[in-house]
Amino acid sequence: MPTFQTVRGMRDLLPDDAEMLNFVMSKARETARLYGYREVITPLIEPYELLSAKSGEEIRARMFTFKDLGGRTVALRPEFTSSLARLVTTALKNEPKPLRTLSVGSVYRYDEPQRGRYREFYQSDFEIIGTSNPEADAEIILLTDSLMKAVGLRNYAFKLGHVGVIRGILNEEEVDEKTQNAILQRMDKKEFDEAFKLVKSEECLSTLRGSLDLKSDNVFETVERIRSHVEGYCKAAASAEELKSILRLVTEGGCPIQAVEPAFARGLEYYTGMIFEVYIPELDIALGGGGRYDKLIEAFGGEPTPATGVAHGLDRIVLAMQMQKATPTTERKKHVAVVPVNESLKSEAFKVSQMLREVGISVELEVMRRKMNKAMEDADRRKVDYAVIVGERELEQGAVVLRNLAKREQAIVEISKLAKTIKG
Amino acid sequence: MPTFQTVRGMRDLLPDDAEMLNFVMSKARETARLYGYREVITPLIEPYELLSAKSGEEIRARMFTFKDLGGRTVALRPEFTSSLARLVTTALKNEPKPLRTLSVGSVYRYDEPQRGRYREFYQSDFEIIGTSNPEADAEIILLTDSLMKAVGLRNYAFKLGHVGVIRGILNEEEVDEKTQNAILQRMDKKEFDEAFKLVKSEECLSTLRGSLDLKSDNVFETVERIRSHVEGYCKAAASAEELKSILRLVTEGGCPIQAVEPAFARGLEYYTGMIFEVYIPELDIALGGGGRYDKLIEAFGGEPTPATGVAHGLDRIVLAMQMQKATPTTERKKHVAVVPVNESLKSEAFKVSQMLREVGISVELEVMRRKMNKAMEDADRRKVDYAVIVGERELEQGAVVLRNLAKREQAIVEISKLAKTIKG
Repeated sequence: MPTFQTVRGMRDLLPDDAEMLNFVMSKARETARLYGYREVITPLIEPYELLSAKSGEEIRARMFTFKDLGGRTVALRPEFTSSLARLVTTALKNEPKPLRTLSVGSVYRYDEPQRGRYREFYQSDFEIIGTSNPEADAEIILLTDSLMKAVGLRNYAFKLGHVGVIRGILNEEEVDEKTQNAILQRMDKKEFDEAFKLVKSEECLSTLRGSLDLKSDNVFETVERIRSHVEGYCKAAASAEELKSILRLVTEGGCPIQAVEPAFARGLEYYTGMIFEVYIPELDIALGGGGRYDKLIEAFGGEPTPATGVAHGLDRIVLAMQMQKATPTTERKKHVAVVPVNESLKSEAFKVSQMLREVGISVELEVMRRKMNKAMEDADRRKVDYAVIVGERELEQGAVVLRNLAKREQAIVEISKLAKTIKG
Repeated sequence: MPTFQTVRGMRDLLPDDAEMLNFVMSKARETARLYGYREVITPLIEPYELLSAKSGEEIRARMFTFKDLGGRTVALRPEFTSSLARLVTTALKNEPKPLRTLSVGSVYRYDEPQRGRYREFYQSDFEIIGTSNPEADAEIILLTDSLMKAVGLRNYAFKLGHVGVIRGILNEEEVDEKTQNAILQRMDKKEFDEAFKLVKSEECLSTLRGSLDLKSDNVFETVERIRSHVEGYCKAAASAEELKSILRLVTEGGCPIQAVEPAFARGLEYYTGMIFEVYIPELDIALGGGGRYDKLIEAFGGEPTPATGVAHGLDRIVLAMQMQKATPTTERKKHVAVVPVNESLKSEAFKVSQMLREVGISVELEVMRRKMNKAMEDADRRKVDYAVIVGERELEQGAVVLRNLAKREQAIVEISKLAKTIKG
């Protein structure tokens, strides 16, 4: 029989890679703790209707959709926010606001596989639900900054925008929501000519075109230019003001924003306010991104509930760490190999192993019945700290041989003092 | 629009439940560290061919199977072992043995939902690959014992058996593998009459029937009875001997086995040797189970490679903990609410919050702009330890008000001394 391979777009994470991903996940959970976000776990399989309702044409077309054995049309989540919005309209309906949640896990999109882009990928998703204040948007950006710092990334840069600026202009010209979505999706891909073809009003078109040229080196200056450019459009101007408040809070909170993009848009349809992404110079895909979605929960049958959030691409963060050689700083705990000198001593080796594990020492017991020199070679290769050799002669005196593999020294140690000696 | 519900058989874990599941997962990872198992992360979506090859008729019929957008027939994993066996024949082919792996995550089976049984459920899966020695089987049972202890369960009991006893009898009578599987699957459900209908030889039938009555209160006595009962069947007798070795090692390792079942079988087809399950008295479904599968890796195109492993049902362990009122013992860290007395001080509130987070204190910043008494009520309800009140008067002296919510006292504290005061 030939061997089996992974399905195209899927991949295995071997121990070193799995450790990196787990490290980033643990930092996401630690960030959640620092900011008061509590984790919820939603199912990976959701109703197709839920996931497709507000995610946008692009993602909808690339979902893993199928019928379950009960004939229900379901899909694997392509992101977390729809599931969270569902939760807020059902099980968490009566929770006091603000509600701060974290989700961590895999999501699925049928994209063309390439570096940093898989069909199964991992996200940490933070949402703050129940307020439209810019403080909440600022918090979402700041916690992203904290996560980037916590995993050891350098030179990362934030790009900030506000969907309300473009939508505010289009609303005034009575462009319907579907056309607005189509325009924003094309702008997201920088297909500005394609996007502007959908705009009928000349005045509106000129305002939109003009907005592309407002960028300055100073982000506060850019926001000011946007505000004055859209002065005639009441909601667009209010959006620019809001963007300024967020920008100020984030900057004063210690996280400088590198770029404000007047024509910035994101793939998901449900954004209504601030949007942002974070990048490192070495990689042209975003490590994370999010924004405000004040209409989603209402659209899902809930009370009108403003909300804002962010999803971090954990695989991409791992890739970024590798590119910047930012290695996890986890405390290395003592690691021991226990080897009986012959098979008849295996019960004694088990007992010694259990005793060491009970005080937190990591033990690899020799289960292969290899000769002593083979077992020692293997222990060396695996960078074990100590070998505990269980032999008859020493056992008679309630002792074992403890070999320090780095120092290449060994001594006879009483079993009752073994754990203490190893822990140093 | 009506609200969306979860798909039947799926469920949301709200913060308290998610915390319990994460606690059990962290204990599984800690157990892996203590026993030298390293985590790998395999995809949730695997080729249907891989997952169906050796899992058995029952599980095969209840998998979530579908075609992806590229027309591949894929399925969501119903268990981890097939993915691990795939890994051992491909990416981990040249890894030195023994190979010890951990997988943690969700698996999917279209079962009828009931208490402790969902269509999406969580497992920790430990595998030790590369040796047929009973030491490896004993280690798998002992680490399960360690995990049960670590989560605080009491009165759990292990049930042990060996597929090689029944298979050894049937082999001798030249019963083909497919029929053997059918017989074992019926025995697993205690449908003994149905199972024995498939056996043609009278002698074999009488040996099988006789094996059902061998149980004694003493597990070593049971194994001895099995061994002498199948004396004429060479492989069956060797299996009984092997079972005895495992039983001895596990018992001497400090984990008493409560029952040896001569006619014990499990749902998965790939088992070839020792099998076991662990239960608590309060719950009639197994909290975990596993066994030896010496032919699976070879069947998947690899070198002949003996292996043994276990899967723990993490949701069921959570349920068991709830039934036994075994609550996680996690260290409670300090938790603070930061509240500006008015909106104009929000930047200062952000600065203080970031400063506290940088030294590991969990901060919920007031983002709702609620009045002070409302914010304090909320902080009380959320069992926050301290409220930090940011006011103009105190700020002028580089200080804030620190209120201890449990003691209902407050004091003015210099910002430079705030973190130290909170940490006590």
